[in-house]
Amino acid sequence: MKHSSLCLILLALLPAIARADDPLPSWNDGESKSAIIEFVQRVTDESHKDFVPVPERIAVFDNDGTLWCEAPLPPQVAFVFDEVKRMAKEKPSMKNDPAVQAVLTGDAEALLADGHKGLLKVAAITHAGLTIDEFNDRVDAWLKTATHPRFKLPYNSTIYLPMLEVLEYLRANGFETWIVSGGGQDFMRVFAEETYGIVPQQIIGSHAKLEYELRDGVPTLTKTLDSIFVDDKEGKPVGIERFIGRRPIACFGNSDGDQAMLEYTTIGNPLPSFGLIVRHTDDKREYAYDSEPPSSGRLVTALKAAPERHWTVVDMAKDWNSMFPQGKPMENKAVSLKATSWQAITIKGQPTHPDVKPDLTFDEAGRVGGSTGVNRIFGPYTVDGAKISFGQLATTRRAGPPDLMQQETQFQQALGKVATYAIEDSKLKLLDADGSAIIELSANEE
Amino acid sequence: MKHSSLCLILLALLPAIARADDPLPSWNDGESKSAIIEFVQRVTDESHKDFVPVPERIAVFDNDGTLWCEAPLPPQVAFVFDEVKRMAKEKPSMKNDPAVQAVLTGDAEALLADGHKGLLKVAAITHAGLTIDEFNDRVDAWLKTATHPRFKLPYNSTIYLPMLEVLEYLRANGFETWIVSGGGQDFMRVFAEETYGIVPQQIIGSHAKLEYELRDGVPTLTKTLDSIFVDDKEGKPVGIERFIGRRPIACFGNSDGDQAMLEYTTIGNPLPSFGLIVRHTDDKREYAYDSEPPSSGRLVTALKAAPERHWTVVDMAKDWNSMFPQGKPMENKAVSLKATSWQAITIKGQPTHPDVKPDLTFDEAGRVGGSTGVNRIFGPYTVDGAKISFGQLATTRRAGPPDLMQQETQFQQALGKVATYAIEDSKLKLLDADGSAIIELSANEE
Repeated sequence: MKHSSLCLILLALLPAIARADDPLPSWNDGESKSAIIEFVQRVTDESHKDFVPVPERIAVFDNDGTLWCEAPLPPQVAFVFDEVKRMAKEKPSMKNDPAVQAVLTGDAEALLADGHKGLLKVAAITHAGLTIDEFNDRVDAWLKTATHPRFKLPYNSTIYLPMLEVLEYLRANGFETWIVSGGGQDFMRVFAEETYGIVPQQIIGSHAKLEYELRDGVPTLTKTLDSIFVDDKEGKPVGIERFIGRRPIACFGNSDGDQAMLEYTTIGNPLPSFGLIVRHTDDKREYAYDSEPPSSGRLVTALKAAPERHWTVVDMAKDWNSMFPQGKPMENKAVSLKATSWQAITIKGQPTHPDVKPDLTFDEAGRVGGSTGVNRIFGPYTVDGAKISFGQLATTRRAGPPDLMQQETQFQQALGKVATYAIEDSKLKLLDADGSAIIELSANEE
Repeated sequence: MKHSSLCLILLALLPAIARADDPLPSWNDGESKSAIIEFVQRVTDESHKDFVPVPERIAVFDNDGTLWCEAPLPPQVAFVFDEVKRMAKEKPSMKNDPAVQAVLTGDAEALLADGHKGLLKVAAITHAGLTIDEFNDRVDAWLKTATHPRFKLPYNSTIYLPMLEVLEYLRANGFETWIVSGGGQDFMRVFAEETYGIVPQQIIGSHAKLEYELRDGVPTLTKTLDSIFVDDKEGKPVGIERFIGRRPIACFGNSDGDQAMLEYTTIGNPLPSFGLIVRHTDDKREYAYDSEPPSSGRLVTALKAAPERHWTVVDMAKDWNSMFPQGKPMENKAVSLKATSWQAITIKGQPTHPDVKPDLTFDEAGRVGGSTGVNRIFGPYTVDGAKISFGQLATTRRAGPPDLMQQETQFQQALGKVATYAIEDSKLKLLDADGSAIIELSANEE
């Protein structure tokens, strides 16, 4: 009896184990998936001649088109256009500016004429002269409301689940995962930690000079458009050396703009190295373009160089069985943690503030995000049956009124004690190790 | 009997335990030491209202005068002068340049005249136009031969043991420790990992534009003097935001050049924060200067602001019982691991290369450094009785002839298996878990 019960239990566990053994479940079996796994196994095996010590395990990722969707417009361009429209509504005199006029009428040609002069002008209007805090607030507000025109998802949800798995897989194997993107460094830092699990100090992007002063006694950093550094093409190896100071051993890109950093990673590197190009071949689930992207960089010379350089070329349509995290079929949707966002109604038995309630959202990629009422909070979580545990949760650092700060502290302390969860009647209970409900949350109506 | 034996053992262990419990043994008891420990305990205690999650635990350190000795000249200035002399010997026509002449005759006034024009000129001669690899080699070669004029120690040994302990203590408590210095970023990266345990990607310093190209098919980064960023005064908060993108919660400096980053760290920070100034008050063991430093930045306004800002002011003479790691009394010197450097004579029973032998040096701060014969190797080690273990050892990444690369691999693999050590007749044996000597080393003659 005992013996056969054990067998039953083992059998029941098998699919879970098989899944747990696959670090890249959104990748179909094939050359691309094998190449990634084989490289990681080789450089992390101490007995292998290609073993690389942890401090040297640096992986760099382009962002637009490599980690998130860049079509029909790179999201930062959509942000600039939306901001110009919003600002012109508040200040109609802005419409006298031909560049603003071009945005409002959708005249892309006018914006790109004369060396992208119009585009630079609207970038200046929406970026320069703002403090870092003001700029971050604007990007944050925009991300919460803007949606991708085709997928009707927030822009930071049109991210590639297969690439999220690569990020997590590399980090679990001692790699630092860096973004090296032509996009704005400050822009990416607003969402990258919550979206990709990449901390601000591991984001390299285009940027300009900042100015610092004590303004009315308050430390203030202001964005300018002076000394612009463009983190694209030859700028990428330059940014890598300036910010990291080590040569990466793995590089992931999708366009000719990434060719210099692919070469820098893989040509004559005394350590074993790996290069990968994400090729957009999937018109059905995303987009198909190489030499003719809707608005971003082309993929021509890097693709041509790939065989000689032994770079892995990913065929999205063939290699990926999932695209965006939201597109993944959810199990047990009716009672799923992940099907909705959750608003805290009690903490340690006390009702939350009538107007400002902490909230949490759990995604498919094992990341929880939300708000303490004052600050954003985010980090990893794992679920195993009824057990739930949170990894190190990071927060932003705004100060708020005393009652909300107190609620924040209580919420964070309670989260630290959560051991299991239960869902009943659209309510999520987070319980401590003694089985007491320390936070109760209700499903947000959608 | 049993009972009393246990007591004896416990008693014998007591001093060791007391020492192990003190994270800052080179600090005398007093306000400065207490302030550091109290802050770290407060922000790492999950039940404390001042708890700070790990990702927010960022500490920033000035380098010159805060981590290492900056008198009578900041070491990088000594490097520039030595390099000019070396280069002028190789190319006598250089002496026609008035700035070079001023270095050779020790005419500091001429160098500093006209807005430091002469100094910038010699900095240009010694830094610009070199590839990063060439520059790193020159700094490395200089560090190996140059010595401090008073202490007769290599410059990367005139580092403050009490501050090394603070670095280690913070890292052991989940902090990232960053250098934010007016010194050259590329210059500091050559030694900071080995000297302070600070990785290149956590070093912010003054820097200029780099250029990237495939030179004869080889990825090459070249230093220029364009777009110089001076990481001093208001430049420090700017550098912090550009490289880290988070506000630090702890800041350590020693001059008015650090005042802006001390203010940025501690004024209106929604998280608990800590500021510390190292005050040079020890003419006997180091130097005493505030408003009149020999050649570096003054400490006047920051010192005046300290009480109001609640910055801890360290009195070197009073607060520190040790200065440089070499100055620490060594226990058991005759048979000490740390009293000499060690050259490998056999690896796994095979004699090492007749001309190129790997070597190791163990310092008092728990760091081992050395060479594989081709590459530098460094990282943490711990000793407990006859037991020895190495933490993650990092290496530089030069390629060498096949026989030396093979020796490097064998040396690294053998190091990974070391469990205990023994010293006999000026020979160090590193043994594996089975008690076999897998590396034998001889003490270098000095």
